[in-house]
Amino acid sequence: MSKIAVLEKFSSFSEFWTPKIIGELNGQYVKLAKLKDDFVWHKHDGEDELFMVWKGTMTMEFRDKTEIVREGEIIIVPRGIEHCPRVDKGEAWVMLFEPKATLHTGDVMHERTVTNFEWI
Amino acid sequence: MSKIAVLEKFSSFSEFWTPKIIGELNGQYVKLAKLKDDFVWHKHDGEDELFMVWKGTMTMEFRDKTEIVREGEIIIVPRGIEHCPRVDKGEAWVMLFEPKATLHTGDVMHERTVTNFEWI
Repeated sequence: MSKIAVLEKFSSFSEFWTPKIIGELNGQYVKLAKLKDDFVWHKHDGEDELFMVWKGTMTMEFRDKTEIVREGEIIIVPRGIEHCPRVDKGEAWVMLFEPKATLHTGDVMHERTVTNFEWI
Repeated sequence: MSKIAVLEKFSSFSEFWTPKIIGELNGQYVKLAKLKDDFVWHKHDGEDELFMVWKGTMTMEFRDKTEIVREGEIIIVPRGIEHCPRVDKGEAWVMLFEPKATLHTGDVMHERTVTNFEWI
């Protein structure tokens, strides 16, 4: 029940593609991630996922289209839809909303898969 | 699967205390609300609620403390906790995450209670 200053939380870590938890509600986590370069194609069979860009620009690739998501914009990826986030220039700071059980690489186990998310 | 520009959505309506839906995921709605002056004391018995301030300053009163939530800050109100949002100066633009069934006045039916939320 204390407020959370989001940009301060982003400033407290530097690893890329390693989401950190800042809040929990209704079985969902609020996470922060710093993105750079490419991620991996994946989907989440049972979970929708929200991305909100706080800094920089994220490119979200779908199999049939590409969305460029800038600061102050959000995109919701429905369950079952293959997607691949990417950052073409510099880094992007992204907030995620997703069920607590969600693995960020979805159905793909990858060297970047994190299974033990840290609270910050 | 199209991106949403949040500030543009805020600019598309002017009513206060009348949340508008901009997204849906995992049984939750993402809503936008413009706040001004006082709201009503209430609680949600079965739902946690997240508030994220996009513009202005919101004061969140609890029975035992007060939190001032500024632009770029969030606050999560756990289920069962009485709270009363308020804006002391000008208006505040606030994003909400909460289960689809949530009434914004919780357990209190009030002249401000909206039961039919509009998508924008």
